[in-house]
Parts: sequence; structure tokens; C-alpha cells
Amino acid sequence: MCADSLFDALQTGNKLDKEAFDRRELPLRRALLQAQNALHDADSPVIVIVAGAEGSGKGMLVHRLNEWMDPRTINTEAFWEASDEEQSRPSHWRFWRGLPPRGRIGIFFGSWYTQPLYKRSLRTWNKAEYHRSLQHICDLERMLCDDGAVLVKLWFHVSRETQQRQFAQEEPHRQQNLRTGLEDLVTDKLYKKLQKAGEQAIETTHSNTAPWHVIDAEDRLFRDITAGEIILSAMQRKLSGAVNPGPATSPPPAPETSALNSVDLSATLARPEYRNHLRARQSDLQALAWKARHQGRSVVALFEGWDAAGKGSSIRRVTQAIDPRLFRLNQYAAPTEQEHRYHYLWRFWRDLARDGTHSFFDRSWYGRVLVERVEGFAAEDEWQRAYHEINRFEEQLTDHGSLVLKFWIHVSPEEQLKRFQERENTPHKRYKITPEDWRNRDKRPAYEAAVEDMVARTSTPHAPWTLIAGEDKKFARIQILDTFCHAMSDWLKSGKG
Amino acid sequence: MCADSLFDALQTGNKLDKEAFDRRELPLRRALLQAQNALHDADSPVIVIVAGAEGSGKGMLVHRLNEWMDPRTINTEAFWEASDEEQSRPSHWRFWRGLPPRGRIGIFFGSWYTQPLYKRSLRTWNKAEYHRSLQHICDLERMLCDDGAVLVKLWFHVSRETQQRQFAQEEPHRQQNLRTGLEDLVTDKLYKKLQKAGEQAIETTHSNTAPWHVIDAEDRLFRDITAGEIILSAMQRKLSGAVNPGPATSPPPAPETSALNSVDLSATLARPEYRNHLRARQSDLQALAWKARHQGRSVVALFEGWDAAGKGSSIRRVTQAIDPRLFRLNQYAAPTEQEHRYHYLWRFWRDLARDGTHSFFDRSWYGRVLVERVEGFAAEDEWQRAYHEINRFEEQLTDHGSLVLKFWIHVSPEEQLKRFQERENTPHKRYKITPEDWRNRDKRPAYEAAVEDMVARTSTPHAPWTLIAGEDKKFARIQILDTFCHAMSDWLKSGKG
Repeated sequence: MCADSLFDALQTGNKLDKEAFDRRELPLRRALLQAQNALHDADSPVIVIVAGAEGSGKGMLVHRLNEWMDPRTINTEAFWEASDEEQSRPSHWRFWRGLPPRGRIGIFFGSWYTQPLYKRSLRTWNKAEYHRSLQHICDLERMLCDDGAVLVKLWFHVSRETQQRQFAQEEPHRQQNLRTGLEDLVTDKLYKKLQKAGEQAIETTHSNTAPWHVIDAEDRLFRDITAGEIILSAMQRKLSGAVNPGPATSPPPAPETSALNSVDLSATLARPEYRNHLRARQSDLQALAWKARHQGRSVVALFEGWDAAGKGSSIRRVTQAIDPRLFRLNQYAAPTEQEHRYHYLWRFWRDLARDGTHSFFDRSWYGRVLVERVEGFAAEDEWQRAYHEINRFEEQLTDHGSLVLKFWIHVSPEEQLKRFQERENTPHKRYKITPEDWRNRDKRPAYEAAVEDMVARTSTPHAPWTLIAGEDKKFARIQILDTFCHAMSDWLKSGKG
Repeated sequence: MCADSLFDALQTGNKLDKEAFDRRELPLRRALLQAQNALHDADSPVIVIVAGAEGSGKGMLVHRLNEWMDPRTINTEAFWEASDEEQSRPSHWRFWRGLPPRGRIGIFFGSWYTQPLYKRSLRTWNKAEYHRSLQHICDLERMLCDDGAVLVKLWFHVSRETQQRQFAQEEPHRQQNLRTGLEDLVTDKLYKKLQKAGEQAIETTHSNTAPWHVIDAEDRLFRDITAGEIILSAMQRKLSGAVNPGPATSPPPAPETSALNSVDLSATLARPEYRNHLRARQSDLQALAWKARHQGRSVVALFEGWDAAGKGSSIRRVTQAIDPRLFRLNQYAAPTEQEHRYHYLWRFWRDLARDGTHSFFDRSWYGRVLVERVEGFAAEDEWQRAYHEINRFEEQLTDHGSLVLKFWIHVSPEEQLKRFQERENTPHKRYKITPEDWRNRDKRPAYEAAVEDMVARTSTPHAPWTLIAGEDKKFARIQILDTFCHAMSDWLKSGKG
């Protein structure tokens, strides 16, 4: 049989009578509950995406799942209209915000597919834009699965006739889509376009780790039992320890040239020159920050560097110039218990500021390939794949129109030692130095290798690293301010990306 | 001397030269750091509110405090324009959202005073509305201080001449208020009105626990050192263990009549009658939920009751009728480590849904006066003052235009025992019963006293309790649905509160 489309090939006409439903429901409920508890204990998050045509009963399944399983560890997230807080951040922000923590089940009614599907079907997006959004989805889903999530993607299919019947019907127990005005929106033409866009989404994002399940949703009993059984089997597969091999990531060769060695640490700046320069650059920066505000665009700037390299005081020279209402400084220590319950990128997504305001990061997601790599908090396959994950993350920021600035402040081990000692001898600076700093210092070679890899693998055209010579603090600060001002000025001229 | 106003009485003309500033700055920094660390270890949150005239250097002080103290445990919150997520919830939601957890310092640039001050000065609000908002602030501040927070309220005063000079000036190091358009807004007349509204705010909300400090802000060195020293002394006072006596709360007498005994547990409903009723009410409810959506208003409904009283299944009968996009069901267990770092009301504020969508609470803030009281997780003074705090909280919800519904589902100890046993014997229900449920059952008399007190002290005209006879589950569900529909219908007729 030669089917025109994926949906045409779907076997339809499935029906389940009440008796058959009842026979299968009870064992299903028991098994679902058991799997839910086991995954809760195993700290695995489960994400169920319920997608498909309007009027296919997605909302009914959401209710059913909450009835079948223990609702105390289920988060039902209805991604419907985006709030302005959501609209003024990269489009995946709202989904990160709604991700279930480890051990819980997130039922997504509406998902990262909804907006792309409609945007493409209504021709707001061209093919390339749609394809790019599907690629972002592939990245996201792979990342979540790599991190241990069970991802179940259900697509409910109904014919246009059934859909229209549903829209027309007015039954107390049905989700009344008709009152949301969708029945006017979904014309015959749009139904077809949504189908076509859906097929492409399914084909592009179908994978071993995150397969699609297209379900004939004409009969509600068949639909719900089938959906429940698919969810159960995905959960059980996870519990049986079936690990997805994923693409073999052979680590790229180590960089041949050393980025750190290329930094000229001998540069200095005299005080009067520094003063004038500082004043001029801060003045520029202040104006640029307001200009970005008026354009509704945001800078994401992160600062990494050796302990005592002068991160804090450099950041202060930047923030001093900017109205406190226009930026937010985020500082990171080891993840809290709560943060550990999510993907490592979660807390950074959470802290992204809105368009028109800037997010500064004192330490950042690069902790994954620095401290977590060196100290063994992340396994090798985890930090190896992080380079790719981070590049994709930053790409979403620049796609959204943000400017991404990344600074590594470099100092020699000798200068670092001098500063450690100075800190220990200055009462109001003593809090800055801890035994951990001394321990890290002993591991300098391992950290150097990690920094070299990081710079080599995550210096992308859209988000390059700037290595700062930090031996002279004044020189370092001016380099950072200069880079900031030049980059912002070019970026603001370029218009919204 | 007879001063016309609080600000006229302020001693002005204070000046500090650079040398005097330097002499006082270093010991101040050391002491601030020490106090910051000690309060961090003591898990006390600190909130610094920087208020006062535009152009008085509030932003400068924010920068200075971040420089003086360890910025790693400071959250700087600039409450400026409210996002639509913030606008569509009671006005204090955004401040709860930005509260520092225990052990951290929150510097509030803009605060719960800003909007009321402007709304009153621009005559958007009449005297009564302004006064009511100040009362809500008093309640909030008392609650935070009772909970262990250090609250420092600074008011920077500058003359209209200084303010205008600041607006006109264009210096790189100054916060450029002029570019935000505020210089056009603040006329001579508005300056005076803001002063007058400020005086009233200061007088109304000044208290021993949360005193105001009005600072002459003409000279920036004097201003910053004075502010720093005031913050330090408030932190030190907390560390020295000075406890604010607060108003003696003599517990009101126990209720004389028993609310629980008045519930007629003998009522039942036959299945056919139940079916018809259920269908009709769910249909009504569905329509009412969409109507509320169109009016942009929200229901806050909470469910409490004995273990196995049928909370879960009753809630399901309500949620089944409502589109999953229109409500969020929040369920609560014991607070997590993160939640413990905030006031007990914090997690409930966090979970309030936006206007037009409903928040359902399966267990709620009443845990404070139920399980926390009976199990001793809250000290007596804590749960005693909680009745007042909860009433004020619910008042804010109804002031905002929400409908607050509170259900207690009552069952006899005998019926409860029967259900416990049934749950233990049904595999897919077994997860619902834990050893804790048996322990709670043994404490029934203590819980009964707590329920009686709760109903007596928190049944307010704006948010009354509804006691549900839960002995017959079908009867209980219909009672809840009936109450829901009647209350929503009346409330929707009444228009936005």
C-alpha cells in the first residue's frame, strides 16, 4: 500500500467497548502506579507530551492520567498563551521553567511543538525557520534524554470530520475548545496544513530515544488505553535499564595551540591612564545599556577565570556603569539540592533576564566543563557532550537577538599566590579565600587542560571567548570594558537578529 | 521648633569630606562583612529597602552595598515596571517572588512603597485606597519581622533644587534617571505630592520592628556612610538577640460551639440522582470557568479534610469539568529544604495562578494551624499569629478580585477506619495510605481542636469555610460542586471587586 502521508498510513477504525476497556484498565493502572513509584525512587523525570489535532481529546487524556496515577508527583503544565515574561526570552525558556524535577512526571498539554506547528501552518514562518525550530527541539530532547529523562511523545490523530463533529458538539464532559474560538481558526485548509507540518515535525524529531507514537484518536476508549499502555511501556523500558546508546561521541583531538599561552600577561596600565579610560568607557557603557533597553534587547555576559583573577572587581566596574534596574548579576556556587533535581543548564535558563535587561553571570554553565570535569562531579560522557549542549544553548540566545559575551580572566600561578596571601592578610578580604581555593590551585594543570578544551570547543562565531590578561587588574578591567563597548556598539547597529 | 512636615524637621546640611569618609569606611566594611556572615550562619534574612526622592542616589547606594559586602549572598532586586505576570496577581506577589531566602540579603531598589506612593500622588488612588495599601504593607512587614527577618527601611531626602540639579547633570558615574523620562514626570507639584504621600507612608508604617530612617541625601559621602551604619546597627541588633516584643497576642477563647459536630454526617445520595446532579453541575462549572476566563478573574479554592475523607476524588470531580488550560492543581507535602528557607506562606504565594486561571490547593497554608500546630513543627506563638496572617493573606486575594473557596471535608473516625482498611486491601489504592496516616488518626482529638479553632478564627466574610459532610462520598462531591457553582455564579455577577 502506498500512503500519501504518515497519517494516511495510520490504521484507523480501532474501537474498544466498555467491557474490554474495563478489563485492560485495572491492570494498566496498577502497573502505571508501580512504574511511577519506581521512577520516583530512581529519581528519573518523565515528560509526556500530548500533541495532535484540536478536538482529538488531549485534555481528556490529561485528566485520565491524573486519575490513573498518583497526582502528588505529577505536574500538569498547560502551555497555552505565552505571558510577556515568556515572550521576552528565548522561546524554550517557558519549557525549561515548566520541566519536572527528577522523580516527577510532567504532563505537557501543549508543548514546544505547538507554536512552531501553528507558525508554520499559518505561514508566519518559512520552511527554513520551521526547520531551525525543529532542530532546536531535537537538541533539547536529546539533552533531556541524555540527562536521564523518559520522554513520551503522543500524537492524537482524528479526521477533519471527527474534528468538526467535536467542535459542534456541546457535551458537559468534553473540553470545550469551541469556546476558545479555535473552531473558527481551524478551517479545512488549516487542518491540512497542520497535518503536513505535523508530519514533518514527527519525521524530523523522531529518534530512538524520543520516538513519536501516532494514535488513532477516533474512539476515546481505544485512545486512552493505547496512550496509557505506551506511557507504561516507556517507563518500564527505562526501569529495565535499557540505555540508549546515542551517537558515539569520539572526543575531538586536544587543541594544538594553547590559548592561555597566547595571552600576554606583561601588559599594564598606569593609574592616570586607567582613570581616564575607565571614566570614558563607563560613560559609553551606560549609554549603550539604555540604548539596548530602548531596542528591547539584552546582553548575556559571563565571567570565568582563575580564583583571585579579579572577576569580582572587574564585574563591579561593568555594573557600576549600569542602572541597577537594567541588569541582574547572578552568582553561582555548587548546585543546591533543588537545583540538582534538574538538568545542569536549568538554573541558568531560569536566571535569564527579560529583553531590554542584561544578565551577568559570575561563574556560569561552563562549570560543567571546568570544576565538574576536574573534580569528577560530572562523568566523562557528561562533560564531553556538554560542549555541544552549551554551544546549542548559546545559539538559542543569539537566535533570540541577545549578545553573548564570555570572558576568561587569566593570571599566572605566581600572581595568584601573591593575591591569595594578600587576601589572607586583609581582614575585609579574608572571606574571599577558602581552603578550596588552595586545593584548586594544586590542580592547576588539570584546570589548564580543561580551560584549553573549553576555549577551543566553545569559541563559536556567535559566541566567542575573550581571554583577558589579568596580571594587572587595571589593564584587565579596561580590556573587559573595551570589549563590552565595542561588541555592544556593533550589535546595536546590526538591529534585532 | 515647629516643623510643618517630617522632612522639614530633618537636619540638613550634613557633609562629609573624603578623608572623614575614608576613616569611617574601612571599619564599617569590616563590621558589615562580619555581621553579614554571622546572619548568614544564623539563617536570618535581611531586607534593605532604599526609598526616597528620584535623583537622591538610591542606585549609587545599591552599588556601594554590593561593594562593601560579600555580593555572593546578596540579591539585588530592582522592582521597576511590573510584568504582565506580576500585574495579573495581587500586588504583593512580585515582592514575595523576590524575597531573599534565610541567610541572604535582599536589597530592594524600589519596593512595595513605590507603586502606592505614585498612585496616590498622581491621584489614581483616593485616600482610602492609599490607606488600605499601607495597611497591607504593615501586615507584610510585621509578618516578615515576626518570621525573623531584619528589615531596614531607608528614605533618602533631597530638596527639589538638588533633584533638578541631578536631573540636569550628565555625569558618567551617575544613574541616568533622566533617560527614563522621569524628569518630565516629576514636576514641582508632583515632588510635593510625593513628599506628602511619603510622610504619610512613613508615619503609618513606622514601627519598633520596622522603623524608618530618613537620611539627608544631599551629600553623597554622608548619605552612604550614614546608610551603611544604620544597616550595620540593625544587623547587629538582630545578632545581639534583641527580640521585638510585638503586640501581646492573647489567644482568643476557644469557640463555644463545635463546627464539626454541626455537620450532619447521615446525608447520602443515591447513584442515579448523583449521576444526574454531577453531570449538570460539571456542565455549569465548565461554563462558569470560561466565563471567569473572559472576565480575567480567578478562583482560589483549597481543600482540607481528614485523611481518606475523599479530598482527591472530590477535587477530581471539580477539575474534570474544567479545561486543563484554565486551572492549576497544587499539592503540598512537608516543605522542602528550599521552601524552609522562606516564610511559610511563600510557597503558596508562588503558586498563585494568573488572572483568568484558577489555583486549586490540595492541602494549603492551613497546614500551619493543623499539622504544624499538632505535631509541634510550629511554636505556639507562630501558629497563634498565623490565623491573623492567613486572614490578611486571603483578604489580599479577595481585594484583588479573586474568589476564595475553602472546604473542610469531614468524616467520622469509624468511616475513616473503614476506608483505611479498604485502601490497604486495594493494590492500586495502597499508595494512598502510609504509617503517618495511622499516627495522625491516633491524634484525632488534638486535630479536632485545631480544626475547630481554624474554622472559628478564619471564617471571614470574604473567605468563609464550607464544611462538607464526607461520610457519603457522592453526597460530598455534589455539595462541593454546588457550593462552587453558586459561589462562582454570584461572584461573576458582582463584577470585578
